[in-house]
Amino acid sequence: MTTAPVPFTADDYKARMERAVQSATDAGLAGVLVAPGPDLVWLTGYQPTATTERLTLLVLAAGQDPVLVVPTLEAPDAQRAPGAPALTLRDWTDGKDPYAVTAPLLDVDGRFGVSDNAWAMHLLGLQQALPGTTYASLTEALPMLRAVKDVHELERLTAAGAAADATYEEILKVRFSGRKELDVAADLADLLRQFGHSQVDFTVVGSGPNGANPHHEAGERTIEHGDMVVLDFGGLKHGYGSDTSRTVHVGEPSAEEQKVHDLVREAQDAGCAAVQPGIACQEVDRAARAVIDDAGYGTYFIHRTGHGIGVTTHEPPYMIEGEEQPLVPGMCFSVEPGIYLPGRFGVRIEDIVTVTDEGGHRLNNTARELAVVE
Amino acid sequence: MTTAPVPFTADDYKARMERAVQSATDAGLAGVLVAPGPDLVWLTGYQPTATTERLTLLVLAAGQDPVLVVPTLEAPDAQRAPGAPALTLRDWTDGKDPYAVTAPLLDVDGRFGVSDNAWAMHLLGLQQALPGTTYASLTEALPMLRAVKDVHELERLTAAGAAADATYEEILKVRFSGRKELDVAADLADLLRQFGHSQVDFTVVGSGPNGANPHHEAGERTIEHGDMVVLDFGGLKHGYGSDTSRTVHVGEPSAEEQKVHDLVREAQDAGCAAVQPGIACQEVDRAARAVIDDAGYGTYFIHRTGHGIGVTTHEPPYMIEGEEQPLVPGMCFSVEPGIYLPGRFGVRIEDIVTVTDEGGHRLNNTARELAVVE
Repeated sequence: MTTAPVPFTADDYKARMERAVQSATDAGLAGVLVAPGPDLVWLTGYQPTATTERLTLLVLAAGQDPVLVVPTLEAPDAQRAPGAPALTLRDWTDGKDPYAVTAPLLDVDGRFGVSDNAWAMHLLGLQQALPGTTYASLTEALPMLRAVKDVHELERLTAAGAAADATYEEILKVRFSGRKELDVAADLADLLRQFGHSQVDFTVVGSGPNGANPHHEAGERTIEHGDMVVLDFGGLKHGYGSDTSRTVHVGEPSAEEQKVHDLVREAQDAGCAAVQPGIACQEVDRAARAVIDDAGYGTYFIHRTGHGIGVTTHEPPYMIEGEEQPLVPGMCFSVEPGIYLPGRFGVRIEDIVTVTDEGGHRLNNTARELAVVE
Repeated sequence: MTTAPVPFTADDYKARMERAVQSATDAGLAGVLVAPGPDLVWLTGYQPTATTERLTLLVLAAGQDPVLVVPTLEAPDAQRAPGAPALTLRDWTDGKDPYAVTAPLLDVDGRFGVSDNAWAMHLLGLQQALPGTTYASLTEALPMLRAVKDVHELERLTAAGAAADATYEEILKVRFSGRKELDVAADLADLLRQFGHSQVDFTVVGSGPNGANPHHEAGERTIEHGDMVVLDFGGLKHGYGSDTSRTVHVGEPSAEEQKVHDLVREAQDAGCAAVQPGIACQEVDRAARAVIDDAGYGTYFIHRTGHGIGVTTHEPPYMIEGEEQPLVPGMCFSVEPGIYLPGRFGVRIEDIVTVTDEGGHRLNNTARELAVVE
């Protein structure tokens, strides 16, 4: 279950960097500037031990080899990254101006894509060093750079989904009533790790009224008989994300609770069924939302229907009204409609879905009926 | 040992926000824009459960009450933050333009300080929504905003330092030789938590040649008899940072190892002794560096002498050549010279020091002699 997949090679990273340069050129950009975080991990396999105020920046531009600007302190670590053979390191020591080190690598009046999560202080440093340059976030400029997964990435996402499913199967066996949300959340985290996750990103346990806050994590509330409980959990396994939600009930549900759950389940099925290569992302949102709107619960579905997943658990493409990006085979994203009745309870059902030539293929496959727990 | 300190009150946060607005005005800024992270924690006590692509931004500007722009999903959490009574929340739902929500709160041609770690995508969104605005990172614009600690902050930093010291005392008792660096690092993390840390930020165990890479964390290398081992560890206790380094030796050191250690110790003492209100930060660096330079090891001291510490373990003021900021009572920072002999070994000794009217006062007080471990 925790057998490690074949590691990505330096050639894999080189190919991704070349793809990024090509995508940038196609989009009229002079290059791509990549800060520590998921973009850098995806492009080079390099993850600094800590993200600090010191500039680490991968510069990808047409006609030049990839250069990693890196603090001298970090250079030995960077040299050991799996993508390092395809990189030239340019290190700078404390007291030097890292933007002056970076500037000669950039077209002085070029437009660059920059990692969403690059620090504002670094962007300001570049803007000041090269006033003729302009910038766009990678999500705006090249939103689909990491969106289409290759077969090795799909293997990892499938394994992460299976581990999340195994976690759900096991959590159904634990006691809910009389225990705190935090205790069940700790069980979820333990199970995710037991099933091979190296990192747990979230373990939402939203019982009763807490379930009506879709980003409630887990708290001191004691779960009671008669509660609806939203479970939403995930993290990284072998570097790729899992994210699934099921809503369970402690004891038998009321007719209204069952009805709301059925509605969310129907909406989630409709969202998954809408997935086809070529349709716009917003069509997935519309398909799920229409079910809930038509039943009169539209004002209680207060978030988008889904988000992409890969080396992060939140990334493009987004399943949201206004997103006209067509679906492409290999894209992976969540389909997770919900209904949130303030002060009462919430319901959310979520699977990761990948686009295939034939339509949507779910990477989460546990039962979607309202499970009764103790 | 883990008795919780008296929590900061809404009035404490209100006073900090007022101080920030006043500092901004004094510096000719129209306001301060604060992203999730240490600035936001310090100003409001609010820490979102995750930092995502959704905009959360505190807007502080003269003549208006503090406003927290927040995703609707996060609003219930934000309302529970200890600083929330002093805030107006302005929430935005998925699909809306968060920069359009923020723009009316900003002077259209104002200059703003922005959190260093605000995401580049958010800065770009603001620059696009309000082309007349300009920005400077908070470290550039208001570097000393959080630098001078009040008595309640000093209590927390003192407690964090004592917990790190207790960790060092205990780690001296464990076996080093024949164990992996990662095993000793795990011991350090366990001890930090045992002594009240809620978060472990780093547990460097740099044995033999690994010690010569000052940002090596800990790895698979098995520690051997005869190794120098750099230990550098810290994290957060009750929200405030610890950070201390000692270098130990497995068995008796050689004359050269002892000499290099003595030199670093002398440099560290000289850095601490230089601390006085009114002197420039760079004087602390110069005092420590002079000892190492004079002994001919200057090229092997490849980082600045220190960094501030508070709600983060790396923040202004920096003890580095060129930093002319005068020391002010209440500032807290590391003094941590080192010598790194590539391929051989490293030595670093680090204490957190706070500035008092009388000079520097160390918050780490374990023995600085080269300890011999098993």
